[in-house]
Amino acid sequence: METIPTLEELHHAHQRIRPFIHRTPVLTSELVNKAAGCSIFFKCENFQKVGAFKMRGASNAILCLPATRISRGVATHSSGNHAQALAKAASNMGCKAFIVMPESAPQVKVDAVKSYGAEIYFCHSTQQAREQTLRSVLKETGATFIHPYDDYNIIAGQATAAAELIEEVKNLNALVTPVGGGGLLSGTCLAANYLAPEALVYGSEPSGADDAFRSFESGTVHPSIDPKTIADGLLTALSERTFGIIRKYAQKILTVEDAQIVSAMQLVWERMKIIIEPSAAVPLAAVLSQPQLFKEKKVGIILSGGNVDLNKLPFTLPFP
Amino acid sequence: METIPTLEELHHAHQRIRPFIHRTPVLTSELVNKAAGCSIFFKCENFQKVGAFKMRGASNAILCLPATRISRGVATHSSGNHAQALAKAASNMGCKAFIVMPESAPQVKVDAVKSYGAEIYFCHSTQQAREQTLRSVLKETGATFIHPYDDYNIIAGQATAAAELIEEVKNLNALVTPVGGGGLLSGTCLAANYLAPEALVYGSEPSGADDAFRSFESGTVHPSIDPKTIADGLLTALSERTFGIIRKYAQKILTVEDAQIVSAMQLVWERMKIIIEPSAAVPLAAVLSQPQLFKEKKVGIILSGGNVDLNKLPFTLPFP
Repeated sequence: METIPTLEELHHAHQRIRPFIHRTPVLTSELVNKAAGCSIFFKCENFQKVGAFKMRGASNAILCLPATRISRGVATHSSGNHAQALAKAASNMGCKAFIVMPESAPQVKVDAVKSYGAEIYFCHSTQQAREQTLRSVLKETGATFIHPYDDYNIIAGQATAAAELIEEVKNLNALVTPVGGGGLLSGTCLAANYLAPEALVYGSEPSGADDAFRSFESGTVHPSIDPKTIADGLLTALSERTFGIIRKYAQKILTVEDAQIVSAMQLVWERMKIIIEPSAAVPLAAVLSQPQLFKEKKVGIILSGGNVDLNKLPFTLPFP
Repeated sequence: METIPTLEELHHAHQRIRPFIHRTPVLTSELVNKAAGCSIFFKCENFQKVGAFKMRGASNAILCLPATRISRGVATHSSGNHAQALAKAASNMGCKAFIVMPESAPQVKVDAVKSYGAEIYFCHSTQQAREQTLRSVLKETGATFIHPYDDYNIIAGQATAAAELIEEVKNLNALVTPVGGGGLLSGTCLAANYLAPEALVYGSEPSGADDAFRSFESGTVHPSIDPKTIADGLLTALSERTFGIIRKYAQKILTVEDAQIVSAMQLVWERMKIIIEPSAAVPLAAVLSQPQLFKEKKVGIILSGGNVDLNKLPFTLPFP
């Protein structure tokens, strides 16, 4: 689709992807609520297929392709959750997937993508090398490029996480998501606008990768230059499509320090006994650091994913 | 109660404790099923209050006391989940709790017990010092000793985890639990005997602490001498009450190596995105190591708890 998805298009996306995704549970924790001074409803996309909400958007994007393009496959460049999601979604639909990954990608992620039957093309880890390799893959294979977020079908797919949360928890006062490229945040903005218009939508971002914050404040998309954060899912910059929605419908972008991210992640692991990745802890870190904004409110948080390398956990770092 | 709990007594225990416990979810994982060659239904007591099934038995034991004894409080010696469960259950019922803990107990466990308002008595870490300190606490306070497992009210409480699982998942072929003192295993035996008599019940134990295996094979309770395992919840020996039930109703005790426990724990963390403690991984390790026993069966596993020290995780150990 070439315009901002309508409510009807969100419904269609949801129907389309339903057989291929989990309806993830919504969890709460008395202890976390006490710490935050509000009632938080956690939408557990860490339990989603491939361990991240990205499965929703990738499934919708492929299902929206005409049969002639599905037969030639899909392609993307990513070393993160989008790569796994596209590989898995393609495999569900009998479609080939070609994934460009940097040679430096962790073996565990390479193995995951391979396990879904995707074909991997390695390249140097610069943005230029990735794009160039992708171009030659597209030329060689005739596959369709599926952008990780600058795509209204992706955005409509990601919107279904918030739509399910809103359906399950009535009268939310706020929704908070992480923001990297903005696919999840823009989708959440649309779901809230159509289905819970009284709920305020916040993005949350590491202060070491605060390009979305700067974009939002200045009104123009800032690039993400040399971002430094433990939240490795949030390194990318917004795109025109995601920014257009976020600027219109989001309330604010909240930034948090890495130490606050680790601390929020530890709170969830220890008290809720569920595994979330650093990027997924950013919204809780934001809520904990801005208690006045959320005091006694009903707050929905999307736990975006649970893919962490258990051999490289951050809990031995000193943090407050 | 002074005889093996009847079905009616299990029902009463369940009604009694229901306001004080979570009805924990049952989770499944396609990936784990594929690895195991059977269909596993995980009863998530890691999500239980205080992070372990022990909350069930402790709540039932206190609720069975007459008011005159509740007014004088309850006591136990434990550095593990029973201490936290008794402290929290006592606090729920406006009852004092006196907990004898070894000076060597991890600060995080001491803090947890304190946070529930219990009074802690420290002692040397020998069994003799614990028992002596407990005797003097009982004498001084008039409190009632609540044994962690050699108590039919505790056993009836622990049985409710399997009872819920059996209610939710029909036609289970097998149930597998860890076994330390045998409270969970004996309770599970009773629940299966009354509610799913066709299901075979297995205990699972670290080979470095295989006193229950030896007791079961020889027909007489073996002590647990110098046990060595990462599964620190399973160090204790069976008691007369738990052994009496287990010998009668359990099928077998399966033993596994620590490396298999760590590997099963990692599988659950990585694939199911939930946190379980090493003791809770023992049943899955047993199922994975004995595929012929469980091939294509419907297997219920009780994930007994999720209390781990995030600063001391075992995943950097070499394991197969």
